[in-house]
Parts: sequence; C-alpha cells; structure tokens
Amino acid sequence: MTKPLKVALVGLGTVGGGTFSVLKDNAAEIERRVGFPIQIAVVADLNAERARQVAGEGVDISSDAFEVVNRPDVDVVVELIGGYTVAKQLVLAAIAAGKHVVTANKALLAVHGEEIFAAAEKNHVMVGFEAAVAGGIPIIKAIKEGLAANQIEYVAGIINGTCNFILSEMRDKGLPFAEVLSQAQALGYAEADPTFDIEGVDAAHKITLLSALAFGIPVQFDKAYIEGITKLTKEDIEFAEQLGYRVKLLGITRRTDKGVELRVHPTLIPAKRLIANVEGVMNAVLVKANAVGPTLYYGAGAGSLPTASAVVADIIEIARASQVPLESRVPVMAFKTSGVDQNVCMLGMSEVVTAFYLRLTVADKPGVLADVTRILANQNISIEAMIQRQAEDESGQADIVLLTHRCIEGDFNAAMVEIEALDAVVEPMVRVRVEDLS
Amino acid sequence: MTKPLKVALVGLGTVGGGTFSVLKDNAAEIERRVGFPIQIAVVADLNAERARQVAGEGVDISSDAFEVVNRPDVDVVVELIGGYTVAKQLVLAAIAAGKHVVTANKALLAVHGEEIFAAAEKNHVMVGFEAAVAGGIPIIKAIKEGLAANQIEYVAGIINGTCNFILSEMRDKGLPFAEVLSQAQALGYAEADPTFDIEGVDAAHKITLLSALAFGIPVQFDKAYIEGITKLTKEDIEFAEQLGYRVKLLGITRRTDKGVELRVHPTLIPAKRLIANVEGVMNAVLVKANAVGPTLYYGAGAGSLPTASAVVADIIEIARASQVPLESRVPVMAFKTSGVDQNVCMLGMSEVVTAFYLRLTVADKPGVLADVTRILANQNISIEAMIQRQAEDESGQADIVLLTHRCIEGDFNAAMVEIEALDAVVEPMVRVRVEDLS
Repeated sequence: MTKPLKVALVGLGTVGGGTFSVLKDNAAEIERRVGFPIQIAVVADLNAERARQVAGEGVDISSDAFEVVNRPDVDVVVELIGGYTVAKQLVLAAIAAGKHVVTANKALLAVHGEEIFAAAEKNHVMVGFEAAVAGGIPIIKAIKEGLAANQIEYVAGIINGTCNFILSEMRDKGLPFAEVLSQAQALGYAEADPTFDIEGVDAAHKITLLSALAFGIPVQFDKAYIEGITKLTKEDIEFAEQLGYRVKLLGITRRTDKGVELRVHPTLIPAKRLIANVEGVMNAVLVKANAVGPTLYYGAGAGSLPTASAVVADIIEIARASQVPLESRVPVMAFKTSGVDQNVCMLGMSEVVTAFYLRLTVADKPGVLADVTRILANQNISIEAMIQRQAEDESGQADIVLLTHRCIEGDFNAAMVEIEALDAVVEPMVRVRVEDLS
Repeated sequence: MTKPLKVALVGLGTVGGGTFSVLKDNAAEIERRVGFPIQIAVVADLNAERARQVAGEGVDISSDAFEVVNRPDVDVVVELIGGYTVAKQLVLAAIAAGKHVVTANKALLAVHGEEIFAAAEKNHVMVGFEAAVAGGIPIIKAIKEGLAANQIEYVAGIINGTCNFILSEMRDKGLPFAEVLSQAQALGYAEADPTFDIEGVDAAHKITLLSALAFGIPVQFDKAYIEGITKLTKEDIEFAEQLGYRVKLLGITRRTDKGVELRVHPTLIPAKRLIANVEGVMNAVLVKANAVGPTLYYGAGAGSLPTASAVVADIIEIARASQVPLESRVPVMAFKTSGVDQNVCMLGMSEVVTAFYLRLTVADKPGVLADVTRILANQNISIEAMIQRQAEDESGQADIVLLTHRCIEGDFNAAMVEIEALDAVVEPMVRVRVEDLS
C-alpha cells in the first residue's frame, strides 16, 4: 500500500486547475493522512497549451482524453470536462478499463447516473461525485455515512450560488431581477447564458442526486419539478420580508407516506431559520432525519478551490479504499443496489403538500377579500396571515397578500383558477410556495 | 459478509436507550444501506431492571460489563457508561479482546485518548467516537474525510448546548446568568452540578479532540486554556449587541506559524456570521480550511436520539469496514500514526493573537480615556470601536467599552495591569475575547 495512487486529470478549466493546485499545494498534508503520495500521472485537455500552463513541467500532457483512460499507470480518472456527450463516453470508457472515476458533473449523473453507477458496480470500481453537489460542502458524505443511522425525512438546499446571490442582492438593495442578473454576470457569478442556473435546472440536477442518496431510490431527473427565479419581483421579496420570511431558491425532496416529492422552486422560509440567513453565493443544505433531527451543512457551493476540495476528498477516499472489496465499500448511492426502492412513487406537484404566498392585484372594492377567502375555504385552505396595500397611484387598485396554511397543491390550483376568474382580480396572481422547515 | 454484526451495548442511560431505539426502529433502513442486519447481542447495565425495561424481551441482559466484552458473539462494544475509571478499563478490555469500540465519552478520550488509540491500532480494531463531539452532527467524519484534501486553518465551535442555551436566554430576555442557569436546570438543559458545562471543561474536551483530528497532533487536554461563562453579565452581552456582536462560548483551535492554539472562552462574534445565530441548545462547528474556505456544520449537540444517530453511524461504519485491513481504513485520528506531529508546539495564551472587548468602570473625569488609549497604544494595541456611558445613578462613574484590533494576548495583559492601576479605574476590568471568524 505504499505505492502512490496515480491520477489522470481530464479537463483543466476552473475546477481542473484547482484540483491540480490542491493536489500539489497540500501534497504533504495529504500524505500525512493517507500514508502514501497521490500523484498526477497525466493531464488531458483539448487545449494543450492551457494544460501545459496549469501543469507546468514534469507532468505528462495529452490532448486525447480517451488515450489516458487506458494507460496502465492510471488508477483514477478525474472527469472535469462537463457536458453530457464526451463526458459520458469518457466516464464509461474509464469504468470499462477498470479505473475509478471522480467527477463534478451533476448534469451527467442526474441524467445518466443509473447507467454509470450500474457499470461501475459491474466493474468493481468507485465513482466519487462529492463535488457535484454544493461544491466543497461534504454533504454527500454526510448523507451517505454521517446520517446512515437515520430514516431521512427531507432534504432542502440552497444549492445554486448564482440564484442565491441574485436573491440576496434583490433583497439587500431593493433591485429588480434583471438588474441584479447583469451585475452577477459582470462579477462572474452568472454565466453569459445563465439559463441553467436561473431556471432552476442546475439545482434540479443536484437535488435529484441528493434525493436518490437520501431515500435509496433511482436517480430520476425527469421526475423533478423545476421552477426558476426569473419571475420573482422585488415587491414580492419585500412583502415576504414584512411577513417575516426570506425568499430562497430551494431544492426540496421529501419522503411522505404517499411517495417522494422532488422539486425546485422559489420558497419563502421563516427569516429566523439559519438557512434563511445564508447569503450571497454560499450554499447550505438542511437535512431532517428521524433520529438526529435537523442538521445543516454550509459552505462554498462553487469556485475553483472549494470544488477541488471535494474532488480531492474523493480521490483520497479511493486511495484508501481501492484495495477494499466491493462489498465492504460504502455503496456509491448510499444504499446497496438490492436495497434500492425501484418502485418508489414520485409525487406529481398537484399531490405535494405545501403552504403558499399569494399576491392579488384587485380593483379596490368591497367584497373581494370575502370572495377570495370563501374560494380558499371551499378547498379547505385556511389563511395564516394577510396584508392589504392600496396602490400609491390613483388606479383604485390594491394588492392583497395572503399566506395560507399547508394544503394540497392541486386544491390550491383549483382555488387559483376560481380566484383569477373573479371580475375584481385585474392581473395574474403571483404565488410562491412557503416551507416552514421546522 | 451476510453475517449480522453483533453489538454489545454497555450503559442504558439516555444515549444507550436512544441507541437501542435507533437500531430497532431504523433496522430496515440500516439493512438497506449495509446489506446485512446489525443486531444487539447483549445489553449490560448495573441496573438490570432498567436494562430489561429498555431492551424488552428477547435480548440478553448482563449486569457485568466486563463479561460481555469477552463474549465470542460480540463484534462491537458500545461504551455509554461515561466517566474515566470503569469506562477506561472497559474500553481497553474490549480492545484487548479484539472488539471494535464505539463511545460517546469525550472526557475519557480527551484525557486518555493517546493510550486508547494506540491500543486500538496495535489490536487492529476501530474506535468510533462521532458521538463524543457535537452530538448528532457528523463533524468528526467531515474533518477526517470530507475535508481531507485541505490544510485546516482553524476550527471554532459552539459545542456545549447548556452554555449556548444560557447565553441565548441572557440575551433574549435580558436576564442575569444565575437566573438563567436555574431555568436551564429546571428544563433539564443543565445538570444539578453544572460545573463541567458552565466552566468550559466539556467544551475543552471536545475541542481538544477536534484539534488533534484537524491538525494531526496528539490529544493534549492538559494544554487547553479553559474559561467558562459564569462571569459574563447581561450588561456585557448588551454592550456587545450594541457593537454588532453576539457572545458565544467557543472552543477554538488554530494552527499558526508559531504553533497551535487550543482554547475555550466566551467570545464576541460579529452578529452577521451564521454561527452567531445558532441559538438555544443547538451546536455548530465552523471549520476554515485552505482549499474549501469556511464550512459550517449545525445540529443537535446532545439528547438521546441525536447522540444515538452518531453512535449508530459509527456502528454502521464498523459493520462495513470490519473486514478491511487496518492500512486501508481511515485512521482513527484522521492522520496516519506516522504522520502525527508529535513535536507540535501548543501555544500558551500569552502568545495567542486575538482581539478584545474591554469594559472599564471609571470615575467620570477628564483624561481617563486618554490614559487608557495611551497605555494600549504603547503596547501596539489599536482601538476599533468605543462606547462611553454615564452611570444612571449619581455615582459620577461611567462605563467605557472598547473593542481592540487583533493583538498579542501577552501585550494586552501588560496593558491591562497598567490600566487597572490607574486611579480613575474603580472596578476590575472586564475583558472578553473577540473573533471575527471571517
């Protein structure tokens, strides 16, 4: 076991460069922990010049990712190229060649995870993906191992730093979405094409993986409900604040008697909850489990070195466990394959139980509120709080803001149709889900 | 590997009872994860009636802890009796008999850890102690494995729920220490003899373990500086609040160029830090590391089921790894024995660098503040903020409250002697350390 572990680093962008740095700068500390060195055998990047710049002299460089996976001196292939097509081929080729794999590619695993994990099990290799969810926060290890004694009830996470930065700024500075998005792009916190982040797709990839890990169910990205933050207004963020809530984009997965919820959407959270106070690009994941109760994990969800911290933690785990027989390892998806609930029912959104914030713009005349509350009551939806605010102009309109108690989303939708059909309701209703997270 | 793992549970108090419940109630979920059952072979308690009450029928009961460790059908001994003497003998006997050990006994490990871990290594058995620090929060696993890629810079934790409850209540309700302590005792949040908690000894046990895990150094409880919360007044908590700070009892360990700091004391933390908002009996541990930056871990630090969550997580880890050779396991103290820095310099408090809050009660006459700031400046201590408040009575006295920038504690102590010698200073000075935790 004093033989060094040899790593092939494929993709030398932000995370790849960080991984190279961490393995180099922390080599002595890592060897104190592991007992032998972890060495970069080869780096591969289409851009050989970039690779040379990052790796310096003394490290093999290749422009062919598929060549490096077959090198006999490589034990672990670290896939950091991203995307679905080449990354998938590369990961499967590495597994077929008997190499362990580490990846930060949540999109790939959320969509093709089942195929990849099955191949890995068949070939007795490990797939580490701590870096795929919440960057440097060791949340996957916490769920797989730290909380292994529990039946997990739900996971709720701020797992997209771009969205959290935008929402934090909208609240702090009272600015509209579009303006803050531009700032975020200028600061490098949002991509030139920010769709995957702001529409909630990235968060959905991550919560899909956490859901499978938490409950021992298949990875089913196609079952995720996804709603982004693009329609949130600063007015709604202000109303939420008045009611004692913060608005966050949450990935939520919950196990109920009827099935598993899997959803990403803007959510009002009580301002006094610790997770409501996670600001800027930081991430945090709240896990509620039946023995331990609530636990929260907070840290940097992206960035070169934080993400590399997770990549290298996986490499270290492989360094230690690579000589361990498959059946003694922690299962890649936390549960034994035989223990995975293949027939789990994934709930549609109309079956989800949640509370709602709703804002109506109405003609300010008597009886509107009575109509609205009657419609809600008919669907067994009761009201927890209400704010009514006259328009400052002379439109004769008013905003009615309501917080409901928890109800079945399908019932709420039915009420919404009736409310929007009222003559006095002059604009489409705004609705944001509310989670107490107690 | 389909053979069940057999556990002996020794001590059926709060945590023992919880461990029994978790293993029973979550047995199916645990088997889905592990692939085979974990069974309680025998429970031992001096009080056989209590043992029978907890365990029900169908479980062997013994009143002799030392008998159960030698049973051939026992793989793991779970020590939950507490204290130093019998617990130590029991743990060493179990190790000598080739049994793996799980314990929640921070006092035992902080004081006798080196001896116990050496014996375990010699006998190729594992010692799990996730439950010894911060209850159900998987902080030990996070430090040993999740952050293994990093050089850890510091660990700062709210790791005593009793103290955090008392300080939260003092701030919330403006009550004095003694009154809140009585309430905490009535609520069961403080022991009849609360010394170990309120004097900081319990927190010092825990931060001693975290320090060794974070830096790869020996467990050295005798090097810890320990200061409790008994002298904190509600006035100082209010002044701190005015300055934008919260007062928390922190365990802090930091690696510097000169050596390792290891200390427990009340600490002012900026109110905007997430850890400053951890209230009541909850615990949280902040870890700053060179790749990942700051990460925070939050949850219940005590209680039957939360602590059992950690105990059972350790049992599960042993269930998986018991067939794994010693050199492939994660080292018990995170670093290989050969990698432990036996010669680490543990810094005395006079060498620690920190900022200070200080409160002086002075005769309200001209020139006092000038004298105080001159004395501080002579020790190279600069001032960040100041509040002066006249006494409401007719004493002619005033409170001067200062926040300093970071300085060497020895320099501050020298200044303190000079300040207290000033004629105008009419009462002993109050000083509380300040940590920015950025």
